[in-house]
Amino acid sequence: MHLFYQPGGVTYLSEDDSRHAVKTLRLGIGDAIAVTDGHGNRHSAVITKADARQCTFRITETETTPERPFSIRIGVAPTKNLDRIEWFVEKAVEVGIERISFFYGQHSERRVLKLERLEKIAIAAMKQSLQSFLPQLDEAVSFSEMLKTVDEEQRFIAHLPPESLPDYLARAATAGGKYAVLVGPEGDFSDKEIEEAVRGGFQIVTLGSNRLRTETAALTACQILNFVNA
Amino acid sequence: MHLFYQPGGVTYLSEDDSRHAVKTLRLGIGDAIAVTDGHGNRHSAVITKADARQCTFRITETETTPERPFSIRIGVAPTKNLDRIEWFVEKAVEVGIERISFFYGQHSERRVLKLERLEKIAIAAMKQSLQSFLPQLDEAVSFSEMLKTVDEEQRFIAHLPPESLPDYLARAATAGGKYAVLVGPEGDFSDKEIEEAVRGGFQIVTLGSNRLRTETAALTACQILNFVNA
Repeated sequence: MHLFYQPGGVTYLSEDDSRHAVKTLRLGIGDAIAVTDGHGNRHSAVITKADARQCTFRITETETTPERPFSIRIGVAPTKNLDRIEWFVEKAVEVGIERISFFYGQHSERRVLKLERLEKIAIAAMKQSLQSFLPQLDEAVSFSEMLKTVDEEQRFIAHLPPESLPDYLARAATAGGKYAVLVGPEGDFSDKEIEEAVRGGFQIVTLGSNRLRTETAALTACQILNFVNA
Repeated sequence: MHLFYQPGGVTYLSEDDSRHAVKTLRLGIGDAIAVTDGHGNRHSAVITKADARQCTFRITETETTPERPFSIRIGVAPTKNLDRIEWFVEKAVEVGIERISFFYGQHSERRVLKLERLEKIAIAAMKQSLQSFLPQLDEAVSFSEMLKTVDEEQRFIAHLPPESLPDYLARAATAGGKYAVLVGPEGDFSDKEIEEAVRGGFQIVTLGSNRLRTETAALTACQILNFVNA
């Protein structure tokens, strides 16, 4: 069953999906498809007009998936090499994440991030892993601005202070919570940023004993929180 | 401190590393470097001959890291798109793995796999994450041949049978063990392969509720076992 994405509450596919359905998959009138709205609803539908510019469908049944009893939000600085952050988005969506918030740290090398391509990757990963929720991707803002938007009650910042050894995220987090985890840029967080986060109620945690790249650390945080709730 | 890799027990760098040290990093006589042998030994050394073809060094101190009290071996089928398996190797080495065994399943699309590039990626990831052990990469063989080489006592195969819901790997695995986890190709394992593994003492497990790509499943298995032992 081919799965498409239509968040608009309308009964036709986007231009990209219409072309894909009609030209590539050669689907025709009466063929069955599945359409998710990215908000938990997955429709079973049949094609009513096989138009490569606007393929219309009729919904025969709708299956609604409840939200997860916990939510994972990762705040991460875009990597210098965009492939790495694109990879993180794909994998985080596959394993399960609710929100990704990008920020520029004092030590960030990259200052520009276009969300359009990342959203396409997130949609493809949602379809591929047969999920009905599309995670929210937030435009990159400064570290301080991003902190202001965090309302999750379980707040963590992944950092390895020179002197002490912080708690392991899997032990610091408790199941069923709303989580926000901050992961720094290649150049790590500045001391000022760490202090600002700690003042904001973020607990310093580690993600394991190895030194991880930014995108690996971000995915590992996401995996740990999924495991804590598995 | 620049970290290099020299498994041979000799006091000069490989041609690649020599060129990198002398031409790219412009290191000279007396400069301090670190050299790991990939077997747990990390040498502090100083350059004695800054030759771009064969840079020699003198070891001033050696720090030996003990092996981990557990070991992770992942058996995985090469993906159709090589980037995905290369990505898995990089990330698995970063988060911690002892051995990767490639196999061709009945439903494998890819039948050829060159280890040379994957070994370069593993070495780079080992250096990048400041580890002293280089995981073993096994040449791709048939599923049956690969099974014969498994002597780990905790054996799992990631699979979702249509009828029953198997145990979650994190609950099935116990800490401090020698683990082997098998992850199937894009086309999944054949029933015959599942039966063969079960006869060989492999327990069927899940890696979570989402449908994961081959390389994501392989990394997730690796992450779960690291968490179980964290």
